[in-house]
Amino acid sequence: MRVSVLFSGGKDSSLAALLLEPFFDVELVTCTFGEVPTEAIVAKSARELNFPHRMLCLEREILESAYEMILKDGFPKNAINHIHKKALETLASESDMQFLADGTRRDDRVPMLDLSQIRSLEDRFGVRYICPLKGYGRNTVDRLVERHLLIEEGLSENTLKADYETELREVIRQRIGEDKIHELFPVHVQSHVLSRKMLR
Amino acid sequence: MRVSVLFSGGKDSSLAALLLEPFFDVELVTCTFGEVPTEAIVAKSARELNFPHRMLCLEREILESAYEMILKDGFPKNAINHIHKKALETLASESDMQFLADGTRRDDRVPMLDLSQIRSLEDRFGVRYICPLKGYGRNTVDRLVERHLLIEEGLSENTLKADYETELREVIRQRIGEDKIHELFPVHVQSHVLSRKMLR
Repeated sequence: MRVSVLFSGGKDSSLAALLLEPFFDVELVTCTFGEVPTEAIVAKSARELNFPHRMLCLEREILESAYEMILKDGFPKNAINHIHKKALETLASESDMQFLADGTRRDDRVPMLDLSQIRSLEDRFGVRYICPLKGYGRNTVDRLVERHLLIEEGLSENTLKADYETELREVIRQRIGEDKIHELFPVHVQSHVLSRKMLR
Repeated sequence: MRVSVLFSGGKDSSLAALLLEPFFDVELVTCTFGEVPTEAIVAKSARELNFPHRMLCLEREILESAYEMILKDGFPKNAINHIHKKALETLASESDMQFLADGTRRDDRVPMLDLSQIRSLEDRFGVRYICPLKGYGRNTVDRLVERHLLIEEGLSENTLKADYETELREVIRQRIGEDKIHELFPVHVQSHVLSRKMLR
């Protein structure tokens, strides 16, 4: 059984893939709007994890809607959730898709589909959506990451990661400027996976 | 890292243990009030799964409170949730406990701790609580069970399982009678794990 895991190169999506690996044939899928050239770095993380990896181009329109949302709201939550939902729908609409997954954790608030959105996704596209980390709290995730992954962490503005936030930030930087990014996005720690630890 | 998984002998708690196995040292723990002699059958399922197993006796008072609740409510939800919460607290209070887990699924409504109850459990007892199936829908669970476990299924009144419902039903049968059980509990399909399939 193949599962396609939305992959940013960060620790959560990487750990989600590791948890699925004993039970599924895992492929990693990184969504992009082509705004930031993240393919090389995220493909390297995927190689280090030893999973097949591909990029998935999302419709430009999705990023434009998210851009309008974040400016209107003044905070990123709805914009990020919008991109996440559309990314899942894009992946789910592939003709041979059965199982798709992502790195959503128990304590996450963004991005996150609620139960009715999950069931709607599954019913509309005939797929099964798995969140392997959904029953794991932050501490447990950190312990598992520490045991299985070598990561580097840094503030969101400096860490190379292929997530939706990176591209949304870039569009805002181009159109309005650096200051607007700091106004709209809280500074938080991002992770980037360097390699996998071999446990013996 | 050891994890103690609440184990009824059914498919959900068994699959939860299987999902944790590559990452933790799993032990299975079956809670009992001593009302129904389930140890032999649940210990056999645990042996077939190849995990260490033990029984954990819960305070009689917990079952009495649940008994009062179900009679007052007229349905089992709050009573079952009460026993589940107390079972987790009893397990969490063991001196060397770090990680505990159960077979709660995404689509479950009972038994289920909400997020604030989970955080309270973790903070009060200094433990980490994991629900490995929480990000898995019913269909995905069924597919994984089919691949990894040999089970028998039957109606709740006929299937031998060491869950809270079995003992609560037994107390009601003794004190009020069989008819009251049918009045209070919806008939639903229960599963009992016979063995583990070897995937080659």
